[in-house]
Amino acid sequence: MTEPSVSLEALRQRIDALDNDILRLISERAACAQEVAAIKAEHESGGVFYRPEREAQVLRRVMELNHGPLDSEEMARLFREIMSACLALEQPVKVAYLGPEGTFTQQASLKHFGESAISLPMAAIDEVFREVEAGAVNYGVVPVENSTEGVINHTLDSFMDSSLRICGEVVLRIHHHLLVGETTRRDKVSRIYSHPQSFAQCRKWLDAHFPHAERVPVSSNAEAARLVKTEWHSAAIAGDMAAKLYDLSKLAEKIEDRPDNSTRFLIIGNQDVPISGEDKTSLVVAMRNQPGALHDLLEPFHRHHIDMTRLETRPSRSGVWNYVFFIDFKGHREEPQVAAMLEEVKLRAAEVKVLGSYPVGVL
Amino acid sequence: MTEPSVSLEALRQRIDALDNDILRLISERAACAQEVAAIKAEHESGGVFYRPEREAQVLRRVMELNHGPLDSEEMARLFREIMSACLALEQPVKVAYLGPEGTFTQQASLKHFGESAISLPMAAIDEVFREVEAGAVNYGVVPVENSTEGVINHTLDSFMDSSLRICGEVVLRIHHHLLVGETTRRDKVSRIYSHPQSFAQCRKWLDAHFPHAERVPVSSNAEAARLVKTEWHSAAIAGDMAAKLYDLSKLAEKIEDRPDNSTRFLIIGNQDVPISGEDKTSLVVAMRNQPGALHDLLEPFHRHHIDMTRLETRPSRSGVWNYVFFIDFKGHREEPQVAAMLEEVKLRAAEVKVLGSYPVGVL
Repeated sequence: MTEPSVSLEALRQRIDALDNDILRLISERAACAQEVAAIKAEHESGGVFYRPEREAQVLRRVMELNHGPLDSEEMARLFREIMSACLALEQPVKVAYLGPEGTFTQQASLKHFGESAISLPMAAIDEVFREVEAGAVNYGVVPVENSTEGVINHTLDSFMDSSLRICGEVVLRIHHHLLVGETTRRDKVSRIYSHPQSFAQCRKWLDAHFPHAERVPVSSNAEAARLVKTEWHSAAIAGDMAAKLYDLSKLAEKIEDRPDNSTRFLIIGNQDVPISGEDKTSLVVAMRNQPGALHDLLEPFHRHHIDMTRLETRPSRSGVWNYVFFIDFKGHREEPQVAAMLEEVKLRAAEVKVLGSYPVGVL
Repeated sequence: MTEPSVSLEALRQRIDALDNDILRLISERAACAQEVAAIKAEHESGGVFYRPEREAQVLRRVMELNHGPLDSEEMARLFREIMSACLALEQPVKVAYLGPEGTFTQQASLKHFGESAISLPMAAIDEVFREVEAGAVNYGVVPVENSTEGVINHTLDSFMDSSLRICGEVVLRIHHHLLVGETTRRDKVSRIYSHPQSFAQCRKWLDAHFPHAERVPVSSNAEAARLVKTEWHSAAIAGDMAAKLYDLSKLAEKIEDRPDNSTRFLIIGNQDVPISGEDKTSLVVAMRNQPGALHDLLEPFHRHHIDMTRLETRPSRSGVWNYVFFIDFKGHREEPQVAAMLEEVKLRAAEVKVLGSYPVGVL
């Protein structure tokens, strides 16, 4: 027993020495960030210290340079916190998000701005927009695409009346698995526990694979996993966290009906974000209803080889135009090819509004 | 405009270089943590990789060595996350906390174990105890002292039937201020907004200082602060976060009636935590009801100069003993003076149970 103690002691001393260096370097980084802020305060009026494009670049760089043992997402998360702390020294970022606390939108806000930002929950999407417009906060975080809750429309509609721009995006992926205890066989599963929302998200898969198993709704997926632990004929639908927590095996992975089961959030603000190197642009386009109009509108995207990632059609609320399209595509409005394409689209549409060009979600 | 751009560019290159070093050192630290885990796995059966005393020592050291510009709490928070990530590489800590998500107990759990721990909300304090006892999780987080909600008893009672020990503590402080817009004068405040719970926590102060102001309950303190922004005759009771978010001034600071307005949480587990250098011990003592018994019991604490930080009296549920006392004091059970004192206390009481010795909450 002396051998391991000795080497443990040596390792701990090594860790202490590494901690000294990490501490020193983070402090130096914070001092540099203060200098950056001082220069900006002097030379830019109302200077914005938070730069989404710069932050995205730093995180992408860290993920590229990282070779373990920590995985790149974890390393990026640590750097997000370091940047968040450095930034908060000068001017903490103020964020309003769609509350209440403990929801995915708060999680998205934390993921994007880190723990050192000042963030407060709002009761409605409108309120988030209003707080940013009033200048009470620098940014807002609102959900825009959600496989189950359908809040898209409300957020998109808010943009139609607002001068705010999109400064970033955050994507939270949500995967469900069919979990069982170690000894449970597939043909023995007669009961499946889960939260009602997760049942809804996996309905087709369950109908195809376990049409006869009883589906028992419980208060949370964690609760489902816990129940299964002691029932050899039961399974639970839950995520990775619950699987790890209760040491359950995955009888089937990623059983959600939509393979892209995730929620996407937008960061809204007053800022035009410069090119980060890997960007997206969001547009609203208003059009008159005439045959072939949509095909006509999309032709320039195709010809300029621009990758459209989303197209939503919404009836126009103003009544003047018949349709409004929300379009997301890869590229930044200041890139020459994108700028040329946008000019052509403007000639074909009744109205085009660029909601923003922003870095593709890094984490 | 060329001057600042050039120096900004230089600073950014310097930050990139620092990031390279920070990345490399964190990776080395993670590799060391893996070696520690490998040695432990080889030499200790069922080895516990998470060491509360070691973690407390690292954080205290970091806070001592830190000389800014980041403040020591922020730096400790970054190191908590770095340690949490390193630990999760080998064996992520599993934690059950009193839910739901978004409550102070989750905040306490995050503060103590960092984001890389696997943590799940439980519906009741009993369930947290049960999950730890069953071995489904390594630790539980439960509130023990709360100025308003009075959950103390439930947690203390759970200890009476349990073999679990206390492995740590977390304290979250909650301060309230009276906030107003920049131009508002004290004698002009005719209306005060706040959440009902905050009104309750500041009642005496309000009665003394603003007996005639109308008290208007709203859904959250953030909402209160927002309302005040546009009303020159109103004030809000809210915390630092809301004050910063809405740029409000503090007409009065820390107006909560109890100066120690805070919630204390316990980390419960199966582990005896070694001496960290700054520790606390919690005891349950059962006594027969006879004149002078409490004075008699406490005498050894006094004589050994041991600093008692809390004493709670509870009626015994078993009926055999008349009273049960919960006692917290500074010191670790393995320190010679504490051990000697405990021996004496045992002679005077009907029953003594040491709930645990653990590091004083660092953050």
